Amino acid sequence: MLKMFKLSKILETVLYVDNFAATEKFYTEVLGLSGKNGNFAVGEGMLLLFEASKAVKQKSPPPHGATGPGHMAFEVPFEEYERWKKFVAEKNIKIEEEIIWDKDAIPVVRSFYFRDPSGNVLEIATPGIWKKLLG
Amino acid sequence: MLKMFKLSKILETVLYVDNFAATEKFYTEVLGLSGKNGNFAVGEGMLLLFEASKAVKQKSPPPHGATGPGHMAFEVPFEEYERWKKFVAEKNIKIEEEIIWDKDAIPVVRSFYFRDPSGNVLEIATPGIWKKLLG
Repeated sequence: MLKMFKLSKILETVLYVDNFAATEKFYTEVLGLSGKNGNFAVGEGMLLLFEASKAVKQKSPPPHGATGPGHMAFEVPFEEYERWKKFVAEKNIKIEEEIIWDKDAIPVVRSFYFRDPSGNVLEIATPGIWKKLLG
Repeated sequence: MLKMFKLSKILETVLYVDNFAATEKFYTEVLGLSGKNGNFAVGEGMLLLFEASKAVKQKSPPPHGATGPGHMAFEVPFEEYERWKKFVAEKNIKIEEEIIWDKDAIPVVRSFYFRDPSGNVLEIATPGIWKKLLG
């Protein structure tokens, strides 16, 4: 790389949904995100929900659209992780798995997985997961 | 919403690729991202490349995997936007479209679109796009 400039951040993260209304409601009411038309501000970036069947037909911006379960992860502060796990479970959303990524870390570095109403695999993680993995 | 806690940021953004080696090379050598095994650190988050054919078969973490072109956007500082557009074009990557999102803003708020070797639609944007759209 000769260039000294770099991409500063991820501005937009996309998930495709097949039930737009229910999935948008899920992100708003369960996960507490704010936004409109399926466009949610999270931290310094945006989570965008698209219906693939519509996005593949658009002329502008260039068409895109994937089918099948996608994946993304959110981060929460260590002290709020357990509250999130409890909160999601109380909403009768199945927690499919919890992974301890670094059992020696204090606090323990971990994440749990569940799905949105369109089947996308969501993850809520403590800080520190990639510190060890990228090592 | 009764809860007073919130998701602090997007930790992981995922794209599915059908040509892992070429696509990883593209993100490393053209876009200048650093990471390993298709896991790139960008700003405060991570961009993860997955082969859907493998990810749908995994037992842990929960399986996921989508087919068809996905989409994501990166942000760059205003002063580096033109250099990025020139740089991408010089790599013989087709710029499919450029959109002026706010022509009255100073500097102009805009983004351009191109594809990675797996067909995912990528966007490089100046700051400010969502300021107007979210109102």
